[in-house]
Amino acid sequence: MRADARDNRARIMTAADDVFGRAPGASTDDVARLAGVGIATVFRHFPTKIELLEAVLTLRLERLRDRALELAGSDDPGKAFFEFFTQVVAESASKLAIAEALTASGATAGEEVRAVGHGMRAAFDDLLTAAQKAGAVRADAQFAEVYALLIGASRGATAAGLEPDVRDRMLGILYDGLKHS
Amino acid sequence: MRADARDNRARIMTAADDVFGRAPGASTDDVARLAGVGIATVFRHFPTKIELLEAVLTLRLERLRDRALELAGSDDPGKAFFEFFTQVVAESASKLAIAEALTASGATAGEEVRAVGHGMRAAFDDLLTAAQKAGAVRADAQFAEVYALLIGASRGATAAGLEPDVRDRMLGILYDGLKHS
Repeated sequence: MRADARDNRARIMTAADDVFGRAPGASTDDVARLAGVGIATVFRHFPTKIELLEAVLTLRLERLRDRALELAGSDDPGKAFFEFFTQVVAESASKLAIAEALTASGATAGEEVRAVGHGMRAAFDDLLTAAQKAGAVRADAQFAEVYALLIGASRGATAAGLEPDVRDRMLGILYDGLKHS
Repeated sequence: MRADARDNRARIMTAADDVFGRAPGASTDDVARLAGVGIATVFRHFPTKIELLEAVLTLRLERLRDRALELAGSDDPGKAFFEFFTQVVAESASKLAIAEALTASGATAGEEVRAVGHGMRAAFDDLLTAAQKAGAVRADAQFAEVYALLIGASRGATAAGLEPDVRDRMLGILYDGLKHS
């Protein structure tokens, strides 16, 4: 791919992340406008809206996975675990909007999205294990319920359209439960 | 309404609660079949699918509200609060399916659904206040974040399709957080 084509692709993805993250029902036209490219350029890179949505969702999950992998090397595994949990919940509204747009387009998550989602969960599991070894998270919590709490906190924050301070207090209660049994 | 008409209406609503609670995409035909009445009878009571869905969702919320009001008279306000919380989460999968079917039908919750939803939240708030006065729930938790946790736990349990034992462990962590700060 030539440098200007790569630039266009990156601009389209950044614009799509923004547009679909705010409004699942947005159109590819809105993306082209924000990216400052013609609609034909969008379709050259992403022949269907579904391909564009999948690319954007994959990018989101890759970034979260990379953040988890980066935090895994931290000196303070407890802090790293709770920092990642908080970031996932804070970003969930826009991430869920993209996932919702994909579902509304009649597509289920493709192979690539599922693979990177799996990688993200594995990295989160490593953060949990390290935080438990450090005594920062209760030892009796298993991955299944901690992951359910992550999904639940994300959806609760999104569904209720929570103000940041209510979200922080919600997470404070949850984190107290995760710290001591 | 004559007694046999009342019976039919009750049978249709019980069938609809079951059918739409399991499969949001189910049809009014499926409801008629399970209720053992003709499709014309269903339409006589509920001229549109939206009216039927709203009636079923209203019934669900009324039952939860009544349960909360009943528990409000308990000698053990802490037990009452956590019992209600657990019941809402356990029933959430089928309740959310009905709400989802309503949204998929292009309807937003009507006046009646919203009014009874408001009554349910008010009754839950009373349970929370009583549990806090009894020292069973931390005093610094405000209604907004506790309600967000209820919504989040319900959606987390539903989205992840949790096994009952994982759901119980998830709630155990959450309840520890709600008990002590």
